[in-house]
Amino acid sequence: MAQDNKKQVEEITDMEVDFAKWFTDVCKKAELIDYSSIKGMFIYRPYGYAIWENIQHTLDAEFKKYGHENVYLPMLIPESLLQKEKDHVEGFAPECAWVTMGGSEELEERYCIRPTSETLFCEHFKNVIHSYRDLPKLYNQWCSVLRWEKTSRPFLRHREFLWQEGHTMHANSEEAREETQRMLNVYADFMENVLAMPVVKGRKTDKEKFNGAEETYTVECMMHDKKALQGGTSHYFGDGFAKAFNITFAGKDNQPHFPHQTSWGVSTRLIGGIIMTHGDNNGLVLPPRIAPTQVIVIPVAQHKEGVIEANQAIVDRLTAAGLRVKMDASEQSPGWKFAEYEMKGVPLRLELGPKDIEKNQCVLVRRDSGEKVFVSLDNIEQTVADMLDSIHDSLYAKAKKNLDDNTFAAYSLEEAKAIQEEKGGLIKTMWCGNLECELKMKEEAGMSSRCIPFAQENLGETCPICGKPAKHMVYWGVAY
Amino acid sequence: MAQDNKKQVEEITDMEVDFAKWFTDVCKKAELIDYSSIKGMFIYRPYGYAIWENIQHTLDAEFKKYGHENVYLPMLIPESLLQKEKDHVEGFAPECAWVTMGGSEELEERYCIRPTSETLFCEHFKNVIHSYRDLPKLYNQWCSVLRWEKTSRPFLRHREFLWQEGHTMHANSEEAREETQRMLNVYADFMENVLAMPVVKGRKTDKEKFNGAEETYTVECMMHDKKALQGGTSHYFGDGFAKAFNITFAGKDNQPHFPHQTSWGVSTRLIGGIIMTHGDNNGLVLPPRIAPTQVIVIPVAQHKEGVIEANQAIVDRLTAAGLRVKMDASEQSPGWKFAEYEMKGVPLRLELGPKDIEKNQCVLVRRDSGEKVFVSLDNIEQTVADMLDSIHDSLYAKAKKNLDDNTFAAYSLEEAKAIQEEKGGLIKTMWCGNLECELKMKEEAGMSSRCIPFAQENLGETCPICGKPAKHMVYWGVAY
Repeated sequence: MAQDNKKQVEEITDMEVDFAKWFTDVCKKAELIDYSSIKGMFIYRPYGYAIWENIQHTLDAEFKKYGHENVYLPMLIPESLLQKEKDHVEGFAPECAWVTMGGSEELEERYCIRPTSETLFCEHFKNVIHSYRDLPKLYNQWCSVLRWEKTSRPFLRHREFLWQEGHTMHANSEEAREETQRMLNVYADFMENVLAMPVVKGRKTDKEKFNGAEETYTVECMMHDKKALQGGTSHYFGDGFAKAFNITFAGKDNQPHFPHQTSWGVSTRLIGGIIMTHGDNNGLVLPPRIAPTQVIVIPVAQHKEGVIEANQAIVDRLTAAGLRVKMDASEQSPGWKFAEYEMKGVPLRLELGPKDIEKNQCVLVRRDSGEKVFVSLDNIEQTVADMLDSIHDSLYAKAKKNLDDNTFAAYSLEEAKAIQEEKGGLIKTMWCGNLECELKMKEEAGMSSRCIPFAQENLGETCPICGKPAKHMVYWGVAY
Repeated sequence: MAQDNKKQVEEITDMEVDFAKWFTDVCKKAELIDYSSIKGMFIYRPYGYAIWENIQHTLDAEFKKYGHENVYLPMLIPESLLQKEKDHVEGFAPECAWVTMGGSEELEERYCIRPTSETLFCEHFKNVIHSYRDLPKLYNQWCSVLRWEKTSRPFLRHREFLWQEGHTMHANSEEAREETQRMLNVYADFMENVLAMPVVKGRKTDKEKFNGAEETYTVECMMHDKKALQGGTSHYFGDGFAKAFNITFAGKDNQPHFPHQTSWGVSTRLIGGIIMTHGDNNGLVLPPRIAPTQVIVIPVAQHKEGVIEANQAIVDRLTAAGLRVKMDASEQSPGWKFAEYEMKGVPLRLELGPKDIEKNQCVLVRRDSGEKVFVSLDNIEQTVADMLDSIHDSLYAKAKKNLDDNTFAAYSLEEAKAIQEEKGGLIKTMWCGNLECELKMKEEAGMSSRCIPFAQENLGETCPICGKPAKHMVYWGVAY
């Protein structure tokens, strides 16, 4: 490692020393985020926003494939509208930022900046749903939402964050339930195949479900520090909001019916997940399929004749092959450049100097493993594409091993507590389904229920907390 | 025209009867927009939002071509931050919506929802600009902004609207001025080549320029009712904000310097412009290069064997050729379908029935002219692409004729007033450059200055309002 490199990397706290500090160091040094003068409101810098743009681009195409259409609804919700669904307002009102003045005038009714948009969508659905022919309505919105939280951390907990929120209405419960599962699977596939983040799919307990939902489904993943992160959620509402907002449609039977509703969302929190799943003590490590720059090309001895041209030719070839490639021919030293793109987590570095040109070869250095290989320039497009796939697979395998190695079964509350204290991770136990036991696990072992996984195992017949008959196997953990 | 068609079209007020009503009818009936429960805050419905997505897609690629990067800054501005630049706050404070409560607590300082983000960008620029190596900073943001206006109209005046705001910082005045012009030209080219809207490029008078800017440039266009619409603006700030925010960088001379700044923006107002430039009494007419659906394929006698398959084959061929195509094989009558896509302004309708299939032909009907032609299915991709180009050219030529035919020279205030009352349109006169004469034109003839066009003409030596020596030729008009 060159001297410059060491110097820059030394500015990042080792994750083993202070994981939280390592995380914020990476966010700052990789230029993903900056602080603003309002606590908890962050600035998405170009490199951080470019990751979000790639997430948007990929997911938006998936949503549209299933017939979803994008819309944009107002950012303000009249207080009376927010109050229409009782559970919903109880959950969100404490976190609302309220607009009380318009220009120099006090408003007659105060408006909250949307913390989520179910109520606004219901108001609109009432206007546009009249007949079964108007169903399903499959809407999605890309926007920012605001939740006035007390504590904040880059990407993980912002007062204002970017997200997408899908809102759909269906003629019956079955179709709505299918949609809830379909979109959960879209999230799971995206996280695994694009972000290289293995997930556990499951249902939230009643305590952990979304305010106003009948059921909430989740994809949970595990970070380097063995804490859990909720990657995305998908909610089934039944016809609760439809009744509260009096939304009906004339069915084929010519009778009025209440439609059934879903909503589902992921946010820029996923970027926090990427950092804590793949990053290392040298900085960010980006999964190739989401990286704004997949290959950084660094000319060696760039002042010698023909070097820049040969590097540019490689850039052109790789770009033509559909890869995201940049060349850094700046006056910075090679050591500085190596450190810079290592910090920024660019999956692959390509070096090409006069000797390589003579030999019709170049050097490829993998960000994930540091492995360095000389490869022929013949068919370099395929070589690079294959190596990017291999990096994706390695990142996924490493994260999967972290998840598997740190998922433990426990057969008593004490054991669950001891494992959490000693090792951390996800701890699976049977559960009777009662809130009291869930609260006891939180109080005594510091863990919340992460989900009732779809992949159930039978670890016994009784709840290890109360001894009553068990209903489900649950994953418990300390979560972001 | 089929019976169903007539019925639906009759729901649109003729523009000659009531232009404002025609406009809102089209916005509603073409399903571009819906009203929310807050006055002036509108819902962008899927079809309206899809037009905006196409605008975003095209402009974003242009911005990136010139090296701009997207970022996202907070939606809230602390009052003290907004106040840092005097002219700026004076212009915007009266239109701010103020957040005064976070959760259940009164805030120590109130925050306004961004009406525009110069102050936020300056706060961030101060953190990230240190050396000449950090310049230029070429940032853009896609977001919504909020201005608490008293009156509202779909697309033209929303309390909350979608836009992009570019914010750039440069090492010196020349580079910043170049950027201001470059982005004005990006807007002008986009409007002419993509939206088929001819523009007049020019500079705003001091009275009409952006609050806090040294110079504002504009692209103005003319609507069907001969009113002017400002399509986009580009501002040169000099180092005024940099000084107010104390942003400096170390130059190559190692001395501190103030950077020079620009900002530029277009909004969903452009959609209002599209409607009022191209629409007709049958509804929306979309320029082909921005239309969400460029070709609607309508199977004739669709229950006969092979008809749907043959239509699907055409859809596949046109889609493979990069065109945006949809087929409507629903149970609605052909008349209903014709009216529906006419209302929605789809540029081209393709009809294909059993007889056509036999003859290896189809019917193409242009939305702009109603012209109906039979064409061979051989090379249908090229035929359709050429016709879409021809529609673009026709729309542009028609709009250009409207602009040219309704631009008049006047040589006295009385004459300007008389022309405005009798004919409307843009009226060009010489001008001394003084605010008093500008105010007098507004008071007596009801016209604001639209711009000092780059294409100057010499209509005389004196200002027709005060008789003093003339400095510029100005365009005056009644504007949206």
